[in-house]
Amino acid sequence: MIRIVSDIDVMSGISHAKSLEGDRICLVPTMGALHEGHLSLIRIASEHADYVVVSIFVNPTQFGPNEDYDAYPRQIERDADTLETLGVDVVFTPDVGSIYPDGFSTYVTVEGLTEGLCGRSRPTHFRGVTTVVTKLFGIVRPHCAVFGRKDAQQLAVVKRMTRDLNLGVEIIPAPIVREEDGLAMSSRNSYLSPDERRQAPIIRQSLVYAAELAASGVNDASVIIDIVRNKIGESSLAKIDYIDIVDQDEMIPMHDISNGALLAVAVFFGKTRLLDNIILERRND
Amino acid sequence: MIRIVSDIDVMSGISHAKSLEGDRICLVPTMGALHEGHLSLIRIASEHADYVVVSIFVNPTQFGPNEDYDAYPRQIERDADTLETLGVDVVFTPDVGSIYPDGFSTYVTVEGLTEGLCGRSRPTHFRGVTTVVTKLFGIVRPHCAVFGRKDAQQLAVVKRMTRDLNLGVEIIPAPIVREEDGLAMSSRNSYLSPDERRQAPIIRQSLVYAAELAASGVNDASVIIDIVRNKIGESSLAKIDYIDIVDQDEMIPMHDISNGALLAVAVFFGKTRLLDNIILERRND
Repeated sequence: MIRIVSDIDVMSGISHAKSLEGDRICLVPTMGALHEGHLSLIRIASEHADYVVVSIFVNPTQFGPNEDYDAYPRQIERDADTLETLGVDVVFTPDVGSIYPDGFSTYVTVEGLTEGLCGRSRPTHFRGVTTVVTKLFGIVRPHCAVFGRKDAQQLAVVKRMTRDLNLGVEIIPAPIVREEDGLAMSSRNSYLSPDERRQAPIIRQSLVYAAELAASGVNDASVIIDIVRNKIGESSLAKIDYIDIVDQDEMIPMHDISNGALLAVAVFFGKTRLLDNIILERRND
Repeated sequence: MIRIVSDIDVMSGISHAKSLEGDRICLVPTMGALHEGHLSLIRIASEHADYVVVSIFVNPTQFGPNEDYDAYPRQIERDADTLETLGVDVVFTPDVGSIYPDGFSTYVTVEGLTEGLCGRSRPTHFRGVTTVVTKLFGIVRPHCAVFGRKDAQQLAVVKRMTRDLNLGVEIIPAPIVREEDGLAMSSRNSYLSPDERRQAPIIRQSLVYAAELAASGVNDASVIIDIVRNKIGESSLAKIDYIDIVDQDEMIPMHDISNGALLAVAVFFGKTRLLDNIILERRND
């Protein structure tokens, strides 16, 4: 039977008791509006732990002033039903006022790693992510936590933060889950108009094409970026935010990708900003 | 028998095992060069916990580029002997490279509270303090930690950070401990020349005088600040860094102190910067 908990102290108490019993606790932090991508994270959490906590919190500090905080889809009851069928133990749904009480003034920042890619377009985004994740780790004190590879920069940032602050949580990466036509699953896909939705798979197609080029020996990042830009440009509704080829851990731009790299993109369809990425590596033959 | 531990994982392991046994763990974070002030913190820790961990780490990130990081007194063996006589369970003495490994790039900052007083003179100081304290809390996972009231702003900042990040550590304030002539104990007192040492008690004398004025009904902060400035100015070797009257929790300057306030000062004697503070409150009569 799933427990729905919104009180921070109750959540801490449950988690503390489970730890004392020797249970391994895994946290899956989400903003709700759950889709198959989230469910795959939760299945991975279940494989790694005795007790699975899923947090649902639309975190205001990771949204910029003109972003979609108010519009972000909220469907907590449907989400809770879904989680129950997956055997999740606790859904943690704190309210904004308890996560950010009066006088809240502490932030966790990761330098360097957060400056390019999404950090360039969304300058306060990662500060919001690292702050709320530190808080969730403090409240739940999980042994592990699962983060999806779709948000590749977020994964690198959270790993770095967890190591740097000695938070003692194992960060488990989870593969990207896709629609049948290749579009990476995202709660924001629900914003897409039918026309935008039809064109959006161009992102994945471009990445797969780039990966094929890299596999066949093209090792100049700027060549690959140009090809991806042109291919995404074939879609009349796509507006590129960034196309970058970076080192996976440091998120530093790479020029020669002979030793592998991450190709990461953000593309707007209308107001909807979609992320995707793919590993580039030379085929061994 | 005291244990001296420098390895982070060993420290975490000991602490985790003690927690599972049901022990309450108290951490006293220090930079070593222990004096009676530290010892009083440790005695308070012993009263609040079953298991006392004292960390000794001269934290480079809380020193500015032209400050006394290299000169800061280090006497780890003597400190360990002292701690053994106090019944401390573990001295945690990590090295700089393990606390700040290659690629370290995560910082914890408290806004607002850190901007005045010491934060004005030492702009990166509190970021260093909050970052290392978050790390020490992550490694040791104490139930409580003791911080001295001499560093009143640090105490307020650490309390705020601990609450804001849900670190789950009770912060216990400890009274200021003084030399016989009233000088607040500090590892930095050892820097003072004999002449400077003779004059340094003017700080405490000025604060006591101010508190007497406030007790007798003077409630204009600027009047009290002027009197303190003049009184400290009687010492030929004193150079005032700041004299501020603030609210104790928010560290915001106050003008009318009818409802109580904190008078905090930093004064240089030569290159040595000394802190002290006192509560101002109207006498009830």
